[in-house]
Amino acid sequence: MKPVKVGILGLGTVGGGTVNVLKRNAQEISRRTGREIIITRASARDLTRKRICDTQGITLSTDSNEVINDPEIEIILELIGGTGLAKELVLKAIANGKHIVTANKALIALHGNEIFSAAKKANVMVCYEAAVAGGIPIIKAIREGLSGNQINWLAGIINGTGNFILTEMRDKGRDFDDVLAEAQALGYAEADPTFDVEGIDAGHKLMILASIAFGIPLQFENVFTEGITKITREDVEYAGELGYRIKHLGIARKTAKGIELRVHPTLIPERRLIANVDGVMNAILVQADAVGPTLYYGAGAGAEATASAVVADVVDVVRALSLNSESRVPALGFQESEIIDSTILTHEDIETAYYLRLTVEDKPGALADITNILAKQNISIEAIIQKKPLHGETNLPVIMLTQRTIEKEMNTAISAIEQLSSVTGQVTRIRLETLG
Amino acid sequence: MKPVKVGILGLGTVGGGTVNVLKRNAQEISRRTGREIIITRASARDLTRKRICDTQGITLSTDSNEVINDPEIEIILELIGGTGLAKELVLKAIANGKHIVTANKALIALHGNEIFSAAKKANVMVCYEAAVAGGIPIIKAIREGLSGNQINWLAGIINGTGNFILTEMRDKGRDFDDVLAEAQALGYAEADPTFDVEGIDAGHKLMILASIAFGIPLQFENVFTEGITKITREDVEYAGELGYRIKHLGIARKTAKGIELRVHPTLIPERRLIANVDGVMNAILVQADAVGPTLYYGAGAGAEATASAVVADVVDVVRALSLNSESRVPALGFQESEIIDSTILTHEDIETAYYLRLTVEDKPGALADITNILAKQNISIEAIIQKKPLHGETNLPVIMLTQRTIEKEMNTAISAIEQLSSVTGQVTRIRLETLG
Repeated sequence: MKPVKVGILGLGTVGGGTVNVLKRNAQEISRRTGREIIITRASARDLTRKRICDTQGITLSTDSNEVINDPEIEIILELIGGTGLAKELVLKAIANGKHIVTANKALIALHGNEIFSAAKKANVMVCYEAAVAGGIPIIKAIREGLSGNQINWLAGIINGTGNFILTEMRDKGRDFDDVLAEAQALGYAEADPTFDVEGIDAGHKLMILASIAFGIPLQFENVFTEGITKITREDVEYAGELGYRIKHLGIARKTAKGIELRVHPTLIPERRLIANVDGVMNAILVQADAVGPTLYYGAGAGAEATASAVVADVVDVVRALSLNSESRVPALGFQESEIIDSTILTHEDIETAYYLRLTVEDKPGALADITNILAKQNISIEAIIQKKPLHGETNLPVIMLTQRTIEKEMNTAISAIEQLSSVTGQVTRIRLETLG
Repeated sequence: MKPVKVGILGLGTVGGGTVNVLKRNAQEISRRTGREIIITRASARDLTRKRICDTQGITLSTDSNEVINDPEIEIILELIGGTGLAKELVLKAIANGKHIVTANKALIALHGNEIFSAAKKANVMVCYEAAVAGGIPIIKAIREGLSGNQINWLAGIINGTGNFILTEMRDKGRDFDDVLAEAQALGYAEADPTFDVEGIDAGHKLMILASIAFGIPLQFENVFTEGITKITREDVEYAGELGYRIKHLGIARKTAKGIELRVHPTLIPERRLIANVDGVMNAILVQADAVGPTLYYGAGAGAEATASAVVADVVDVVRALSLNSESRVPALGFQESEIIDSTILTHEDIETAYYLRLTVEDKPGALADITNILAKQNISIEAIIQKKPLHGETNLPVIMLTQRTIEKEMNTAISAIEQLSSVTGQVTRIRLETLG
């Protein structure tokens, strides 16, 4: 099949990230879609600006109309942001019969009803996975993955800046203003932080999540928002003493009287998984009647994390564009001809770190014998705990953590250790992964 | 459009749960799909057995062929389990041109290549979201949500029984055999627990995840599995002392030399979110090149949690069955005509619990004045912390947690409290949600 041509409006952080991901992963993406996706045109306000992406092969223009009027282009990626020009261009592109992929939460929260209705008339798709929680596929999870459920409520950490500030206040006992200044210096917070710290950005995202959870029209004006600016270091501490964490949550809840839509600082029991989502990370907890609670966690912002969602939407559109069976999601996610039989390592070739537990005679040199054996197999020791002898014990447990090594080497070392006269019984080994 | 007719093979836990969810949520589901979904036939081994579902309106039979040969039925739900009869019936149903939805991990892991190839020839879909991690939409997240990424590795707690056992061992310092016996009594573990505790069940699921992550053929014979039967209470304790938790992980990792496919007990740093996934819950952590780490958490088993995934697959098939634009995922997840404008509560009507912080004069009766005001608004107090006076302070912070109340009541109470002569300054209030 012939390639699908894509045009991009806006080459800033998200636009640049999207160009990079589409180019770097072009092969993997067409293994999944069965069609090549190429960016033929892009617009940007200032063509002389330094970019994070390579724009080779893309016709650039300062006039977005050149992108949306190109008859060859089937999909427009709106990555400008804001609700003025972006809205105008999206509506024009829809009128031109283009499918839209956008990362613009304000645009969808404030003008989504109008845009979706125009898209329905023009028989085109408008996709906005990137508008909520960056790279986490939460729109897909709710609209498709939980489609058999009635959603009772959802609660999300959906603003990374706010979560970074609250995490720093707790971890380091710092004040709000102090951390905000640092977040601004690091680029996590805007010079005018109102959108983030007053909950407006989170409110936009919450409105979108509530609409798809409950099937209600978008209505940002009915979202209650309270910011985190009045939270003190002391509140964070007292909450901790009581077993809670303070998070800036967006909550949407169906009640017998109506639907609650609210963004505010919230105490959550510290044992909840979502209470442990720290720094700039996002997470959404969804309570639904059949599946119960599910949680979705990941990066809520950043060039490539957001691009991940933009590209997933492009792939969805491409799969839907062609109406034959090939265009459906293939059974294993990749096209049948693209399922490649790679080398699978045997467990002897697998690399991990190890926890070792063994029983050693309490005499000089016993530990040295063991560490020498490990050194011979090039296995580095990360930590050793030797339990103190109690009431005259002579055989003591020794626990070691090693650095990563090939299982073969570890097998050789363990055999040798088990033959030492100072070691009793077998060595217990459990693999260790930092998952970092 | 006319209703879609569905036939079910197997009316046990998952089959019964699926009937219940499809019936209970019929209205919500057709708001999402635009078509009614009805179960017309089902088969079960023993028709006299007591069931968890109401089978009214469903033609029952002990002969599954009556279901798969019904020309009216478009989608077959294979919820028998096992790889003998299930495989035979699925292949026959495919040959009959039926779309398949299955929850059968062993069937897909062991015979998926053959089944997908038959389905492709017959131009039907085979969906298996319920085969991995129950109700968590992880197949959809990887195949569609992360389709722009190269997946580097994934690690999952994908067997609830094993995770329940390890959690109990840690929380209560119990031995493996002891907890296993309890898990069997509770129905979390089978009479023959080999599949769960030796990692075979997790191995099936890992194989499926690895195939869709990397685009490799299913090949369960190359998965390395090690069980949790040799983990001792002491290992769990020592790991804790070192800052780790032991989890039974399935890991699939792309390396320069080949792909690792392994299930084994694994130490993970306790600060990782996945290390805090306890009890029978499942979670999968996916590391991908653009989005970075994302995590998906939820119930990995249970009648309705698994049914949630089965029904989501049915909805996907129904949406794909009709080729017009209506069949696509609608913009807000519900059909445009089904977007219903519900009552949105104002924040004064929202119900939450509260954290209150106020400064109170250290004199008799000061606290009683406050608690009387709260009682008058029917606000119950859950906990009070009164800080001890240091070096002659007379004004002391008091922190209170209240039970859930309407915001209006709290506003009235706070106004009254702020007028007390023994209270200095304003009352700080932060909402509290247990999210349980």
